[in-house]
Amino acid sequence: MAKFRVNILGCGSATPSARHQPSCQVIDFRDKLFMIDCGEGAQTSFRKMGLKFNRLSHIFISHLHGDHVFGLPGLLSTMGLHQTGGAVTIHVFKEGAKILKQVTDYFCRQSPFEIIYDELTPGERRVIYEDNGITVRTFPLYHRIDCTGFVFEEKPKPRHLIGDMVKFHNIPVARLNDIKNGADFVTENGVVIPNAALTTAPDPQMSYAYCSDTMPNAKIAEDISGVNTVYHEATYDHSLAALARERGHSTSVQAAETARDAGAKQLIIGHFSKRYVEGELLLLDQAKEIFPNTVLANEGLRMDLL
Amino acid sequence: MAKFRVNILGCGSATPSARHQPSCQVIDFRDKLFMIDCGEGAQTSFRKMGLKFNRLSHIFISHLHGDHVFGLPGLLSTMGLHQTGGAVTIHVFKEGAKILKQVTDYFCRQSPFEIIYDELTPGERRVIYEDNGITVRTFPLYHRIDCTGFVFEEKPKPRHLIGDMVKFHNIPVARLNDIKNGADFVTENGVVIPNAALTTAPDPQMSYAYCSDTMPNAKIAEDISGVNTVYHEATYDHSLAALARERGHSTSVQAAETARDAGAKQLIIGHFSKRYVEGELLLLDQAKEIFPNTVLANEGLRMDLL
Repeated sequence: MAKFRVNILGCGSATPSARHQPSCQVIDFRDKLFMIDCGEGAQTSFRKMGLKFNRLSHIFISHLHGDHVFGLPGLLSTMGLHQTGGAVTIHVFKEGAKILKQVTDYFCRQSPFEIIYDELTPGERRVIYEDNGITVRTFPLYHRIDCTGFVFEEKPKPRHLIGDMVKFHNIPVARLNDIKNGADFVTENGVVIPNAALTTAPDPQMSYAYCSDTMPNAKIAEDISGVNTVYHEATYDHSLAALARERGHSTSVQAAETARDAGAKQLIIGHFSKRYVEGELLLLDQAKEIFPNTVLANEGLRMDLL
Repeated sequence: MAKFRVNILGCGSATPSARHQPSCQVIDFRDKLFMIDCGEGAQTSFRKMGLKFNRLSHIFISHLHGDHVFGLPGLLSTMGLHQTGGAVTIHVFKEGAKILKQVTDYFCRQSPFEIIYDELTPGERRVIYEDNGITVRTFPLYHRIDCTGFVFEEKPKPRHLIGDMVKFHNIPVARLNDIKNGADFVTENGVVIPNAALTTAPDPQMSYAYCSDTMPNAKIAEDISGVNTVYHEATYDHSLAALARERGHSTSVQAAETARDAGAKQLIIGHFSKRYVEGELLLLDQAKEIFPNTVLANEGLRMDLL
């Protein structure tokens, strides 16, 4: 299976604590790196995890609270010191682009690479990135301020050729790509060999949903329906549901309900309140009752998608 | 002796490394905290050292390179979450004030305390802070961009009364403060008892000079002449003097020469290049040959002034 891995660089909320760094994670999709949110200290965690700056070209910012963006100036400056060219694109709401641009225009003005700002629109569902292998799309979240989630989705993969059948029908090499993509084969005698007789199903398309700061909302499960792995904030345990609602956050149980309703295979919970000084096992236990395959995010965690 | 202590929060250069955080230190003068420079991660180091946010009301920024300022947004946001009022003043060049204000106006707009920007002028020698016990003044440094140093200087202290003489001359309590401040005493008979017969010399005025990023320049030693403790950048060992000059920095030997020429009692060197992965003992040895009482800065170091 091609690499599709999430690296957790920070999974605390609001302020750095003894246990956690603020929000930041990096998706490693076949050695291309995509950063999601960039709390203070991200550049240090990035290096600690052995990730390579020159593979990082897109950064996605869910919303404009400091604990999701304050690592950007330092990260971009450091990349400017290490890289000899290229570009990095920051996908962020318009107001954030404006402020960050002023900061980077001043502090990174000698950077040898270009910093591109791609402005996101609140509430929008849109594909904001695409390459040969993957798309990234936005969907709305429901926080105190505008907030967007991101779905990373592999593109459809080629079907697997059945070697014996290819040989038996003496299929020319030039036809194989079309057949991998679903075409039937027509022999010299005009006989149609249906694709299903020549191939087996492709590897599944893997996908990952990042649900940043949000209150629970049934629309989230619809928007991320069928993803393999969900990251969802779980700032509080469920006894603090009223506080969570007041602050525009979710509890562990609510995160698990969303993963369950989306039909996901695994759930990573994070964005923990720093009140859980002994760890977040309470949150894990609560989530597992609803959605058994839940794991706690932690700095340094690397998870391959299921 | 009243407390006058320097806390080192970060003493690396350019980018955070495995060994060091970017520049940040905190002067603790009789439990008032003054931060000098604020590299990324400052808020985390601040807490790790057990310092109290509510005692910090002035932050001094030497120049506008990211490794000296990128910790400010996070620090100020966190202070906003912890404090219930008051104000913090950032002393910084005009251009930095403008950019930082845009960042804090947006990201700290719900802070319960006021963020005041005091604009510094490049090249200026000026007292920029004063209270009952201490003054802070600027002096020019010589970096690639405008850069200022800071001298923290205790105000003159009262002379010590000689108890027996006070008793012998039957001096009224109401006169004692004047005498501590140098006045003579005139008896009922009109006899003048000179102050020198009534008091002994006050405790010495302690002072601390912060020499941020700079090339060596004879004017620095003049500007900080007579300070007790000098912090001076020593980015490189002396074999790299040419590189240091090219980048507007100093070597360990040059830092020591400035401390020696200023007549200081102790020198702390920092702002180390990350090339010294095994530690900076080479820099220390070189500096000590010129100025024996040199110490290496290190994260977590607390030094009381000599």
